[in-house]
Amino acid sequence: VSILENLILKCLAKLHEFTDILVFLLHADPNMVNAGDMNGSGNLMDFLDEPFPDVGTYEDFHTIDWLREKSRDTDRHRKITSKSKESIWEFIKSLLDAWSGWVVMLLIGLLAGTLAGVIDLAVDWMTDLKEGVCLSAFWYSHEQCCWTSNETTFDDRDKCPQWQKWSELLVSQSEGASAYILNYFLYIMWALCFAFLAVSLVRVFAPYACGSGIPEIKTILSGFIIRGYLGKWTLLIKTVTLVLVVSSGLSLGKEGPLVHVACCCGNFFSSLFSKYSKNEGKRREVLSAAAAAGVSVAFGAPIGGVLFSLEEVSYYFPLKTLWRSFFAALVAAFTLRSINPFGNSRLVLFYVEYHTPWYMAELFPFILLGVFGGLWGTLFIRCNIAWCRRRKTTRLGKYPVLEVIVITAITAIIAYPNPYTRRSTSELISELFNDCGALESSQLCDYINDPNMTRPVDDIPDRPAGPGVYTAMWQLALALVFKIVITIFTFGMKIPSGLFIPSMAVGAMAGRMVGIGVEQLAYHHHDWIIFRNWCRPGADCVTPGLYAMVGAAACLGGVTRMTVSLVVIMFELTGGLEYIVPLMAAAVTSKWVADAFGKEGIYEAHIHLNGYPFLDVKDEFTHRTLATDVMRPRRGEAPLSVLTQDSMTVEDVETLIKETDYNGFPVVVSKDSERLIGFAQRRELILAIKNARQRQDGVVSNSIVYFTEDPPELPPNSPHPLKLRRILNLSPFTVTDHTPMETVVDIFRKLGLRQCLVTRSGRLLGIITKKDVLRHMAQMANQDPESIMFN
Amino acid sequence: VSILENLILKCLAKLHEFTDILVFLLHADPNMVNAGDMNGSGNLMDFLDEPFPDVGTYEDFHTIDWLREKSRDTDRHRKITSKSKESIWEFIKSLLDAWSGWVVMLLIGLLAGTLAGVIDLAVDWMTDLKEGVCLSAFWYSHEQCCWTSNETTFDDRDKCPQWQKWSELLVSQSEGASAYILNYFLYIMWALCFAFLAVSLVRVFAPYACGSGIPEIKTILSGFIIRGYLGKWTLLIKTVTLVLVVSSGLSLGKEGPLVHVACCCGNFFSSLFSKYSKNEGKRREVLSAAAAAGVSVAFGAPIGGVLFSLEEVSYYFPLKTLWRSFFAALVAAFTLRSINPFGNSRLVLFYVEYHTPWYMAELFPFILLGVFGGLWGTLFIRCNIAWCRRRKTTRLGKYPVLEVIVITAITAIIAYPNPYTRRSTSELISELFNDCGALESSQLCDYINDPNMTRPVDDIPDRPAGPGVYTAMWQLALALVFKIVITIFTFGMKIPSGLFIPSMAVGAMAGRMVGIGVEQLAYHHHDWIIFRNWCRPGADCVTPGLYAMVGAAACLGGVTRMTVSLVVIMFELTGGLEYIVPLMAAAVTSKWVADAFGKEGIYEAHIHLNGYPFLDVKDEFTHRTLATDVMRPRRGEAPLSVLTQDSMTVEDVETLIKETDYNGFPVVVSKDSERLIGFAQRRELILAIKNARQRQDGVVSNSIVYFTEDPPELPPNSPHPLKLRRILNLSPFTVTDHTPMETVVDIFRKLGLRQCLVTRSGRLLGIITKKDVLRHMAQMANQDPESIMFN
Repeated sequence: VSILENLILKCLAKLHEFTDILVFLLHADPNMVNAGDMNGSGNLMDFLDEPFPDVGTYEDFHTIDWLREKSRDTDRHRKITSKSKESIWEFIKSLLDAWSGWVVMLLIGLLAGTLAGVIDLAVDWMTDLKEGVCLSAFWYSHEQCCWTSNETTFDDRDKCPQWQKWSELLVSQSEGASAYILNYFLYIMWALCFAFLAVSLVRVFAPYACGSGIPEIKTILSGFIIRGYLGKWTLLIKTVTLVLVVSSGLSLGKEGPLVHVACCCGNFFSSLFSKYSKNEGKRREVLSAAAAAGVSVAFGAPIGGVLFSLEEVSYYFPLKTLWRSFFAALVAAFTLRSINPFGNSRLVLFYVEYHTPWYMAELFPFILLGVFGGLWGTLFIRCNIAWCRRRKTTRLGKYPVLEVIVITAITAIIAYPNPYTRRSTSELISELFNDCGALESSQLCDYINDPNMTRPVDDIPDRPAGPGVYTAMWQLALALVFKIVITIFTFGMKIPSGLFIPSMAVGAMAGRMVGIGVEQLAYHHHDWIIFRNWCRPGADCVTPGLYAMVGAAACLGGVTRMTVSLVVIMFELTGGLEYIVPLMAAAVTSKWVADAFGKEGIYEAHIHLNGYPFLDVKDEFTHRTLATDVMRPRRGEAPLSVLTQDSMTVEDVETLIKETDYNGFPVVVSKDSERLIGFAQRRELILAIKNARQRQDGVVSNSIVYFTEDPPELPPNSPHPLKLRRILNLSPFTVTDHTPMETVVDIFRKLGLRQCLVTRSGRLLGIITKKDVLRHMAQMANQDPESIMFN
Repeated sequence: VSILENLILKCLAKLHEFTDILVFLLHADPNMVNAGDMNGSGNLMDFLDEPFPDVGTYEDFHTIDWLREKSRDTDRHRKITSKSKESIWEFIKSLLDAWSGWVVMLLIGLLAGTLAGVIDLAVDWMTDLKEGVCLSAFWYSHEQCCWTSNETTFDDRDKCPQWQKWSELLVSQSEGASAYILNYFLYIMWALCFAFLAVSLVRVFAPYACGSGIPEIKTILSGFIIRGYLGKWTLLIKTVTLVLVVSSGLSLGKEGPLVHVACCCGNFFSSLFSKYSKNEGKRREVLSAAAAAGVSVAFGAPIGGVLFSLEEVSYYFPLKTLWRSFFAALVAAFTLRSINPFGNSRLVLFYVEYHTPWYMAELFPFILLGVFGGLWGTLFIRCNIAWCRRRKTTRLGKYPVLEVIVITAITAIIAYPNPYTRRSTSELISELFNDCGALESSQLCDYINDPNMTRPVDDIPDRPAGPGVYTAMWQLALALVFKIVITIFTFGMKIPSGLFIPSMAVGAMAGRMVGIGVEQLAYHHHDWIIFRNWCRPGADCVTPGLYAMVGAAACLGGVTRMTVSLVVIMFELTGGLEYIVPLMAAAVTSKWVADAFGKEGIYEAHIHLNGYPFLDVKDEFTHRTLATDVMRPRRGEAPLSVLTQDSMTVEDVETLIKETDYNGFPVVVSKDSERLIGFAQRRELILAIKNARQRQDGVVSNSIVYFTEDPPELPPNSPHPLKLRRILNLSPFTVTDHTPMETVVDIFRKLGLRQCLVTRSGRLLGIITKKDVLRHMAQMANQDPESIMFN
């Protein structure tokens, strides 16, 4: 066996080399591919992006200054308003500018809805392709194939002569061991094929397309720049590979990546309007709305999407954005509905309606499910992070293609024999959520009917479980264990992968099992005190589907720590206030249980793992440190690099720029008095000096640089001085050295600062940057700041 | 006629004097009553409130410092956490403290839901009392009376022998002119009686109970202190008088005041927990959640309530509050549902379900309704504000009781003859929203049925209108004009009055009329191009009830400028995504149209009218002024009153305090260097000096006051110096004089500052307070700052 294993490993390693060669052939510079690790400095530049960032733009992997962006936008707006009074043409232009926000939202909604619809249809077709093909039209999925067929009966909607399993087509055999093995083999082959294609596409064309994207989007929305992360190339590749990986049967969902896809749409459309493309702050407003549209189409929940964007993803969310997000979310939802990918005029596969109310006593199992969800969330986050860290730090991370192929193979091999893992995860969830009607043919609805009972179709009393239900129970139990284990290894591979659906599936399976258990207990023990009041014989008192839904909410809540948006999404799936209390009870319990083991949700955990500079609004900083403990320079360090307002030469400044790598320098009256005048950005200093040297006569290395209104008095014959007041920020943000860090953190969060200067009675003492704040917070939380940050 | 008029006026003036005497008898100090004007400095103190505010609390009509409140809470939390490790008892106490937030929410939800239910039931009964009485049990409303009766037939649910009109009871006559006149007269008398009782109760016991309360709650949530506004007394009186005024038939609603009632509940429960009662910042988090609970019970829309609180009311809304608000809103909704005041297990009277979809072509009338809503909103706000200003500035304002009685009399006299104004406004809205089913007996559903048609009950094709519909149309038109006019005069009187319901009624009437018009047009012109595609003969294509709902949304949007929360509330009323697009189209149009005439919604307009110091998050400040233009002292004014760190005597400080009325003083190194050290609050200075003089030996008028760590070097024999570093805020907020006001406004908003010091290269130049910012913003908007502020 060990020889065989070695052989496979070697073959796969060869295959891996082959992709690397492919990569090499497609790009002259193989280093560029390493951008896929997300933390390198190079990346696959989006070709249409501005190649040479100018004054006022930011460098890659830098943080934006929200206050500055906002005031730049106000300037722009002021200019347009004053111009608009000049001529009719300018007035129309100003109107167009005012409307461009809504136009962008409309476009985002349309494109996100269309993409979601296309992805749904493609996934449907390709998932079925693993089992067979439609003879009348190969592009039909199983269901569509049998719909169009005339020979389908109502009882057996899944069987029709046009749809042929591979075994029927290839060896004309539909039953028997050899047919089963052939189908099994082809199923695995298709899965491997899809997965390999996906991981290769991601590696070759768009390394940023991997993962769910939500941690990175949170970071970007908080003001970080990752060029190309939301590019057109990423959009295209992510859409295509998302279809491939979901169809390959891996334990992952398309909901998280859909948010990334929608944000790419948002970025694309915002680049068409200068109002958004030239202002990183405004662009982020569009992206927040796009995230809402993404969730809206992922779950068919526009309001839930807006709340998700507000609660989970966004950083700066003004009320204007709320309204626009809502618009984008609705447009996206209606676009998806008009595409109607599920053929039921619903937005999601698992929309449900229940017919019976819930009872107080059921709160106990619901809360138990909440506890299960919290434990699952903790377990998942811990194990997944440990595995991802291992991947980052050991040789494992060097074989992403191999990893994907191995995991796909394992998934396919184990999944095929069990009907609950063989089908797509969203179909599984849909079946688990379903209430057993009279006409349901599913194994889960195999109850023993009382032949004497004649009742309306909707109101079926509790019945004893038949053999199908018992079979389903242990199959579900096996599927549950399998899903729990495989999801931990799947999330974080170098393919697009969301974990809403796997989490919900875990919860739905556990919930359905608990639900069936409670139902049978109630049926067989009508006389127990807890059942006596509400569950008389012949009453329909327990809905196992509701338990599945509650379980799904609990597990999703445990993993992501969503609260309001989770409940609202679930509310929009059931469409009634009736079941909000069970859902809330489970969501609250799951959050509390999970929070007891660690405050971080999966997205925050991945942000930390990747070391993004993200200042979480939810973290409370409660330590008693002061600004003076955090600022640089520390005691004993070299003094702060400063510029003086009128005594340094061009050469001095250039030397300072060369010797340090700070993003900017405070400007003081003189080295002695150290009284603060303003702050100059490194970028703008370099550009201004370069510009002056080229164009301004008389500016030489010995010229005095001055930041004051009037030139300083110079000895005669000294070279022409260089005035740089234009680039000086005269209102740098300052705090005193006694300011509690709690307040400083609050100021950084709320105003979105990059840096803040520390003074004492007017004298400049030091500087605190966003990274200093993050480092300090990590330190106070007993984490080694250097090991976790920006690696 | 003029003599009669004079006589009535004199009589009413006497009546008015009488109430004043009553007021005088109940309170020793008649001046206290003037607090009803909301802008005086005295007020009816809530007896259980802390009588002597201590260090760390704020004076009435002052603004809180959010940053300070937050850091105080962190200190508290830190103390509890560190103590919790000491003993089990302390640990339990810390747990209780952590849970107290949820307990408060639960209590608020329960009380707000209960009060809403009680109000609904009482209004129902008292509204019917104006027309007659139930003989079997006088506390039954008309509907309840006939429910319990066995003699009611299904066709005529409103007629039963137990329910007797006053004319039947008093003169045994149910029909005829004299019976009509008697009923008319008694209707007016009851209305006057209710209204007089209400206005007297408000004037005597709780002057703050008048109005809708939302403008004041917005101001309070933004950090202003109005003691007693949310007191227990206000709660009680507002609840009682709300029932009275709604029953009196005035054109007002209970929805806005319910928000105030819920906030009073919030304030009451937060005063039970020291975590909230001692921290004005934390208290406001509870109040935000309470506002959500208020809207939740007002409209039966928990999600809409949370969004309303977020969008419309709240100022500081952290994510934790979002989750808790949602909890409170749900508890309130479920409490109300279990009380079941409408007997239909719905939360509101006007929950609807429609059966037919809407068509693209219908968007045109929907947008027209949006335009109508916007125009109505503008008209209402302008006229209402003009009238309220007249009331404030002329003698009119001196006769609030008379005003209420006159308006009630006019309302009752005009309303009685028209069936659409006689009934309660929410019943009217409910009828207008309704789709005409087969069994509907309402005049609005008097269509001519095709006798040959046999169809299922729900799917009724378009039919020609019968005479009842035409009668209803002109009655509705008259009612619409009446409502528009009377609402302008009603809102702002010294009684509890909300305007959600009157606005919705105006919109619903207009919408229903447009709907019936479109329906009849479509029926009679099936062959027109616009109808040909979707409105074939025999199809049910137009739902006039939907038009009413769209109109209601448009008018409500025009008046309040709500957007997302409005659509979500309406969505929760209809319970389906289907009709969100029409609602959004109308809401957006109405907002745009209304905004074109003026940016302020009714609540902001009333805030301005009353001159509350409210810094709106939505106003954009786009002018180019700098901090130096706004700060005090202005050029030519006396220099800033400052304290020096170690050279002033106790007497100097006391003189400074006596001679100025500033809330605090910057502390500088010395008068010459003017370098800033910190900021000392006036309150705390007074308390500290008083304290020191009483208890500290050797502190006399000549003692030097010092704010430094170590006492200054003093000549021998000088009195013992007084150290006041403890009360010095060492981290006052500073900006430079070159900071754009745009940034300053942003900082004030986001950090919730009271004041901000202005420096230039470390030297203190001046100070900017929140009121300076507001004054400047008014000035830039071409309003006279002194005339509109704080009058």
